[in-house]
Amino acid sequence: MGVNSNRVEHFDSHETTIRIQTTPSFQIHAVQLPPQQTTLHKLRNRLSEIFFPDDPLHRFKNQTCFTKLLLTLQYLFPIFQWAPHYNLSLLRSDLISGLTIASLAIPQGISYAKLANLPPIMGLCDHSENAADSSFVPPLIYSLLGSSKHLGVGPVSIASLVMGSMLSEKISYTQYPTLYLGVAFTATFFAGLFQASLGVLRLGFVIDFLSKATLVGFTGGAAIIVSLQQLKGLLGIVHFTSKMQIVPVLISVFNQRHESLKKPKLFWVSAAAPLTSVILSTILVFLLRNKTHQISVIGHLPKGVNPPSSNMLYFSGAYLALAIKTGIITGILSLTEGIAVGRTFASLQNYQVDGNKEMMAIGLMNIAGSCSSCYVTTGSFSRSAVNYNAGAKTTVSNIIMAATVLVTLLFLMPLFYYTPNFVLAAIIITAVIGLIDYQSAYKLWKVDKLDFVACLCSFFGVLFISVPIGLGIAIAISVLKILLHVTRPNTLVLGNIPGTQIFHNFNQYKEALRVPSFLILAVESPIYFANSTYLQERILRWVREEEEHIKVSNGAPLKCIVLDMTAVTAIDTSGLDTLCELRKMLEKRSLQLVLANPVGNVMEKLHKSKVLESFGLKGVYLTVGEAVADIASLWKARP
Amino acid sequence: MGVNSNRVEHFDSHETTIRIQTTPSFQIHAVQLPPQQTTLHKLRNRLSEIFFPDDPLHRFKNQTCFTKLLLTLQYLFPIFQWAPHYNLSLLRSDLISGLTIASLAIPQGISYAKLANLPPIMGLCDHSENAADSSFVPPLIYSLLGSSKHLGVGPVSIASLVMGSMLSEKISYTQYPTLYLGVAFTATFFAGLFQASLGVLRLGFVIDFLSKATLVGFTGGAAIIVSLQQLKGLLGIVHFTSKMQIVPVLISVFNQRHESLKKPKLFWVSAAAPLTSVILSTILVFLLRNKTHQISVIGHLPKGVNPPSSNMLYFSGAYLALAIKTGIITGILSLTEGIAVGRTFASLQNYQVDGNKEMMAIGLMNIAGSCSSCYVTTGSFSRSAVNYNAGAKTTVSNIIMAATVLVTLLFLMPLFYYTPNFVLAAIIITAVIGLIDYQSAYKLWKVDKLDFVACLCSFFGVLFISVPIGLGIAIAISVLKILLHVTRPNTLVLGNIPGTQIFHNFNQYKEALRVPSFLILAVESPIYFANSTYLQERILRWVREEEEHIKVSNGAPLKCIVLDMTAVTAIDTSGLDTLCELRKMLEKRSLQLVLANPVGNVMEKLHKSKVLESFGLKGVYLTVGEAVADIASLWKARP
Repeated sequence: MGVNSNRVEHFDSHETTIRIQTTPSFQIHAVQLPPQQTTLHKLRNRLSEIFFPDDPLHRFKNQTCFTKLLLTLQYLFPIFQWAPHYNLSLLRSDLISGLTIASLAIPQGISYAKLANLPPIMGLCDHSENAADSSFVPPLIYSLLGSSKHLGVGPVSIASLVMGSMLSEKISYTQYPTLYLGVAFTATFFAGLFQASLGVLRLGFVIDFLSKATLVGFTGGAAIIVSLQQLKGLLGIVHFTSKMQIVPVLISVFNQRHESLKKPKLFWVSAAAPLTSVILSTILVFLLRNKTHQISVIGHLPKGVNPPSSNMLYFSGAYLALAIKTGIITGILSLTEGIAVGRTFASLQNYQVDGNKEMMAIGLMNIAGSCSSCYVTTGSFSRSAVNYNAGAKTTVSNIIMAATVLVTLLFLMPLFYYTPNFVLAAIIITAVIGLIDYQSAYKLWKVDKLDFVACLCSFFGVLFISVPIGLGIAIAISVLKILLHVTRPNTLVLGNIPGTQIFHNFNQYKEALRVPSFLILAVESPIYFANSTYLQERILRWVREEEEHIKVSNGAPLKCIVLDMTAVTAIDTSGLDTLCELRKMLEKRSLQLVLANPVGNVMEKLHKSKVLESFGLKGVYLTVGEAVADIASLWKARP
Repeated sequence: MGVNSNRVEHFDSHETTIRIQTTPSFQIHAVQLPPQQTTLHKLRNRLSEIFFPDDPLHRFKNQTCFTKLLLTLQYLFPIFQWAPHYNLSLLRSDLISGLTIASLAIPQGISYAKLANLPPIMGLCDHSENAADSSFVPPLIYSLLGSSKHLGVGPVSIASLVMGSMLSEKISYTQYPTLYLGVAFTATFFAGLFQASLGVLRLGFVIDFLSKATLVGFTGGAAIIVSLQQLKGLLGIVHFTSKMQIVPVLISVFNQRHESLKKPKLFWVSAAAPLTSVILSTILVFLLRNKTHQISVIGHLPKGVNPPSSNMLYFSGAYLALAIKTGIITGILSLTEGIAVGRTFASLQNYQVDGNKEMMAIGLMNIAGSCSSCYVTTGSFSRSAVNYNAGAKTTVSNIIMAATVLVTLLFLMPLFYYTPNFVLAAIIITAVIGLIDYQSAYKLWKVDKLDFVACLCSFFGVLFISVPIGLGIAIAISVLKILLHVTRPNTLVLGNIPGTQIFHNFNQYKEALRVPSFLILAVESPIYFANSTYLQERILRWVREEEEHIKVSNGAPLKCIVLDMTAVTAIDTSGLDTLCELRKMLEKRSLQLVLANPVGNVMEKLHKSKVLESFGLKGVYLTVGEAVADIASLWKARP
């Protein structure tokens, strides 16, 4: 049972001299109050802990004015950190990786725009009437402001999907294309505004509430919806492909991409796969163009860079609420992905990504994007993985990608005329099917059943109800899980491990022994309004059960209850009242209640509320061991 | 500073033999896993802890079939517990207290019905067209089912107020009296249904989420609203009373009631005050009836008991949603008051009140009430206090009160014709002003600033927005407070208290000493998705600051970080990932990370997720002391 059971476990001869049955000369340590602080001081500490846990100004300490100015500039524009040291060797790496991600970006951009229910080609390019490009402006902004070196910026499937499903519920793109585009850009604007404000207000921790478990379920559900939507495009071609077997081949090729992080050598193959299949299928359809009229193709794509779209933003009218709602949901989702991806690759190379800083960068990039015909972009997992594996060193790779896309937009667009829509559908399905992370779900089941339930609920919520409600359910379950832990905390009965001063749970440590006449309880949670009633009842039940046990086993009568407060990290006024009442109730039954090891702020509140006085000098001890030893010796002195 | 500083604090000679700088023969205890349980078994334990924390069936263990039947009967109808032992002496006590609360009930019932915007006399009596009585049927039901001996049942100000303000927002009583009454009865029905279901489903803990702090603020705000509403009725009479000075006198008389719990001798005076003032003012107005036409009086009150009202309940139509919403809010508020009052008086006499049982009793009483022209009733604080002080022994006092009210309804109602409305307004204002508990608010400010903020927010929310929103804000703040504690948990640096194995926070214990080359951190919270990112950053910041400190002070280089996991009472998959990642990040910087004292379920998850394996055999210790001693001795052996 013991994990470390092969350790030497023998008794030191000195050790045995310390026993519970000690003499009255046993050393008792006073429990001390933390040093007094003014309310203002405490408030300042608390707020700085909430909003500035990373102490962002620590680099500025003890620096000259000039250095401070330079540091500020570098903080605002991380490009100043690496630009002075930039050289040709770095450029070569960035050039290669930039071209690689561009080859992924072109088909991906086209496909993801389709996901957002924007016209097939919008993810990449277009003109003022029917298009949104997300591959060109945002990467340039990010390369100025972003603090991650490997983040590949672009549209991501989950945000595209959510935007598409939320907008097309209310507006039909085919009927009102300009309105649809305008609302999409407005939503992007609000997504950016929301993201940047979270960063500026240092409220980055709100994205922590999307736990990994709920995201796994949420993404899985969303992926299945998208795949089903895209099957229509794919099935339209089934008669044809049943002869050519292109689809199964494509799928098997694309599937490799998701395992590719572990196989860097195959990376070029899988990274280039989408582009290769687009090129091959386009050529194939072009050659067969006289025989296959049934295949739907993209059709005419105008050349040109994206036009400004700031005049298309809606800041009033009936669709403003929709745009804000869509913006906040896609904003928080894309932020979660962007920050998580940034952190993942930063930890691989052992550098830090500043969450709040990243939020500002991603937010500003989306605000700029909304004014240049782009929809929501963020750090994309697939692009960043390709970027990292292709050897990117700085965000210059994003600039290279943007330039490549620009060239494509200006000169190469007509070449995509014959690209068949089913290839785009296949790229999308492959990308989103890869998001179904059943292995993580299995791990959740194995390690934490409640996490697994949260995962399942968000999965089915998205699949059978709707995206925002699914997301709401996911967050509600995560919060409920925390609340449940607080509402029904563990209480454990402790016993002494023979020959030591250590007290531990009977259940975990079989060698632990009951101390006669004592009931030692550990409360494993702060004592709050939400659990104070429960704890009072539960502790009284432990006392009742202990007394019944003593009656049956004919043991020494119960005289003292020791509450081990080590894990009671906070207490509120309800909790204080409960402790007081509990002491009174036990006193009426001639049982003594003492507290062991209250932590600093609990001690402070016990003192301020005068509860400490009602416990008296012999009511609070530093450790359970000292409490038991001292009280037992007092009993011996006057039985 | 030390609270127990007058304790003898000397060193036992044995004590000093145990030192941190121990020999390699130091005893190391293995950290053990809790015994394995199946998922089903764990689920059963967890559910029984959530829904049956009080183990309601423990009385049924090891009993004969007949006893079990008797116990079941007694459980369902507590009247069977005390009825066999009922005697004349008990009856005398109950008779006196029953008559006393009836004298309070009559004017209170009339006044509270006014609060609920029901016609002035509804709180007491009436006929099918314009009335709701809450003093007659419910107490009879409660005396059969209730488990509290001292609870005085009746309408309460807060629920009356909320019902009145919520219903009259949508329906005007003066225009549609029958509809208004019907919706009020329907709301009462749903309040009862909601309360009973909470009891049956054993979800009683939801009322724990209304913390005392938020209730203090909420009640205060509601009291001010009501007082302002009633001032109209009171001011209409000001010209008159400025001569007679009745109002100030009345207020000073009534004010005593709220201090009366502490002065049992004055109790008769204050308990009878409302009735006395109603009688006196009625006689006065009757005598002056020819001179004072301006005084508005109650007017004609028909005699007779309440008619059945089950035919007036609406189970469809436009107002169903309003009735359900009002029912749930008044239901939860009156439940909170009822249970809290029941618990208060039970603790004074040292008996237990079963929360879920009480919910069923209060719920059934309201369902029955809604079918007999009554609006929401619960255990009323003022009535219970009067009841308790008048010497009630069992719920028979409720039966006596009901009988007295019945007699009044049948024969004495016409006597109230000349009761002036301003006296009723004064009774209401006095009752609700007494609910403004500024002393508790001051105590909250002194002991817990965040509780005080919650209290203030619910106060202003109710005062300036609306009752349901005020309540919503209050609950949201309470939940946010819990979440904030989880999202930004404390991390403490521990030091060794010289001559002991005890490690404590530097801040609280000035004598604690740093252990060279070690950084000992205690995390004071479960590690969850909501705080795992924060904790990772915060721990890295502690390490950075420690290294800076060492650099400045030229100390021994940092080699090992010990995480004291005693207060980490739970961990989820995000937390496990964080621990793993932290270990890897620190390893890259040649720093060792070890865990001390992980509790049972954390240990289990570490094991299942294989994180334990990555920490290795020497990565987990039972106590901080053993970790420091063992690692230091290893360093000595191979430096």
